[in-house]
Amino acid sequence: MAEGPTINTIAERAGVSIASVSRVLNGLPTRQETVRKVLAAAEELGYVRNAVARSLKSRRTHQVAFAMADIGNPVYLAMVRQIQPVLKAAGYRLVLHSTDAIVADEIDVLHSLGERYVDGLIMSPLRVTNEHLKMIATARAPVVIIGSVPEGTRVDNVRADSRTGVRLAIDHLYELGRRRIGFVNGPLDTVPGAARAAAYGEALKERGLPYDEEIVEVGDFYRAEGARAARALLDRAPGVDALMCANDLIALGALDVLRAAGLRVPEDVAVVGMDDTDLAAASWPSLTSVSLGSAERGKAAAELLLDRLNDMDSQPRVVTVAPRLVIRASTAGEAAVLGVRGETSGETVNIPLQSKGGTP
Amino acid sequence: MAEGPTINTIAERAGVSIASVSRVLNGLPTRQETVRKVLAAAEELGYVRNAVARSLKSRRTHQVAFAMADIGNPVYLAMVRQIQPVLKAAGYRLVLHSTDAIVADEIDVLHSLGERYVDGLIMSPLRVTNEHLKMIATARAPVVIIGSVPEGTRVDNVRADSRTGVRLAIDHLYELGRRRIGFVNGPLDTVPGAARAAAYGEALKERGLPYDEEIVEVGDFYRAEGARAARALLDRAPGVDALMCANDLIALGALDVLRAAGLRVPEDVAVVGMDDTDLAAASWPSLTSVSLGSAERGKAAAELLLDRLNDMDSQPRVVTVAPRLVIRASTAGEAAVLGVRGETSGETVNIPLQSKGGTP
Repeated sequence: MAEGPTINTIAERAGVSIASVSRVLNGLPTRQETVRKVLAAAEELGYVRNAVARSLKSRRTHQVAFAMADIGNPVYLAMVRQIQPVLKAAGYRLVLHSTDAIVADEIDVLHSLGERYVDGLIMSPLRVTNEHLKMIATARAPVVIIGSVPEGTRVDNVRADSRTGVRLAIDHLYELGRRRIGFVNGPLDTVPGAARAAAYGEALKERGLPYDEEIVEVGDFYRAEGARAARALLDRAPGVDALMCANDLIALGALDVLRAAGLRVPEDVAVVGMDDTDLAAASWPSLTSVSLGSAERGKAAAELLLDRLNDMDSQPRVVTVAPRLVIRASTAGEAAVLGVRGETSGETVNIPLQSKGGTP
Repeated sequence: MAEGPTINTIAERAGVSIASVSRVLNGLPTRQETVRKVLAAAEELGYVRNAVARSLKSRRTHQVAFAMADIGNPVYLAMVRQIQPVLKAAGYRLVLHSTDAIVADEIDVLHSLGERYVDGLIMSPLRVTNEHLKMIATARAPVVIIGSVPEGTRVDNVRADSRTGVRLAIDHLYELGRRRIGFVNGPLDTVPGAARAAAYGEALKERGLPYDEEIVEVGDFYRAEGARAARALLDRAPGVDALMCANDLIALGALDVLRAAGLRVPEDVAVVGMDDTDLAAASWPSLTSVSLGSAERGKAAAELLLDRLNDMDSQPRVVTVAPRLVIRASTAGEAAVLGVRGETSGETVNIPLQSKGGTP
């Protein structure tokens, strides 16, 4: 295969020095006339900035990757919608990986940083294994993790606070008079699953409600699995008057099951989801949900990565985004009917964003 | 920055020839003892297959890109879920771009093929401009287009048949006795928008129904815009008894508006969407929708690209996937209640997939 144009052939065509071509192509100050000649020659020759040549030279690809756990979960969509414009404004193209939360695939993406097709990576793993930590520590490009990592891990990190989030939801259900609040969770070996299980137990305790494993069911973070788990829970304990669900997809599955069973939401069973995705506002009835600030977390991760690309030596930072409860028809049917201002509206209980900290 | 290990340093450490290292790293048949030595040396030196070195050598990155128009539209999700396993099985990692159907961003992705960070590209543009065609013709890596391109374009191409799809929907509504069938479309300057507008007119004509621009409204392919367009249409022409919507997101917006207006679906207004996304089965009431075979189109595109990567010289191929109508509660409420077998079930009118053709 014939090689394309190079700095040498452009210099020859433009009648300028190789150093001048290099200055122009790297955007360094150069005489106007030289810039004109070089760009004209480059265009005539069909020169394409070549990632191979560029990465050999500057080790910059002007691409950044975001590895999501599940492209089908609107949480990641909300993140992409924030990450992409922040990076685009800074001159980076975003490439996405969908890992299906498969550890081997996440490790493969971390490994691929050695191949230098991106300048940095934002990753949102559901499970953080020792293999993850080892790869992060030795990664060939900066990594930002969205999700909780063990204390002391030296990595830029954006966290949700699902513990507080679960408490907001349980408090809300308690205040509505619900006393038999079931819990439909995702896998306990995931970081969010474990955190939400602990938070559910604590929140019940704070309100003086007994923990009853009869009304707790573990499935997975998808709609069909959520429906299956909710069905199992309701078959076993038909007397629950509320269901706390560990994400919106599970909650939508629970709504499917309640409707099929002829139960009224929220009169018979109130339902709360988590993540406040687009689906929560759009479902019927609309779904009360705990926002864990997906959009804010995406934006914060993009900003941390840009800061890191500009300064590789500063201390890693942790940004924690505070949760808020968005109340809709699935818990407060009447209030929602009185209060809605539009299809995505909802009464919100806001806790301001915590500022960026200097902690590890 | 110190350079990492190279073929030379591995050869030195392993005490074998450079040619032997190259054979092992490229997976060519080599003596077992040599393989062992080389891999041990490579691991000791922390060798990472380097995309720069590899692409200079073999011009293969073992990555493939899929550029979607809108990561928020489950159509592309359905495609990704087929494309990813097909490519993974063949040893390729999938990277995704979400272009928001912005032509400049699609052109940028086509341009970036010159940077050789992927071996090939699957792209699904909503608008095919001359700039697209020029870039496709000169692309530095193979491209597969999902969507319609002008006749005679030399590119591997996967097409839907939305014309037949719209006809299936209108026939269904006609058979249900609907005679005033409104149409909520996406932009007419997009390939699908233009095709569906033409198909709607033809289908009415075939059934002897008059074309009335009063009951046609153009918005965009998103839920909020679909709701806005449906509201405008209903305000102007309250007597419509059915709404044909150019995709599922528009149809969900229309359902929102009909519910807010206190109209019953399907008794007062029957609604049909298009694309048969996960949202259609999950909406309440569940949505009758024309499947344009997103999953089949994704799979076909991945297979065309793999075939192309194995044989750069064969004739471009066109695969057309046939539509089918999936009937649910939004048009056939009673039938759906009688007929459902599960949350995602639906009566389907199947037209078998057309086989791969050798055209154009």
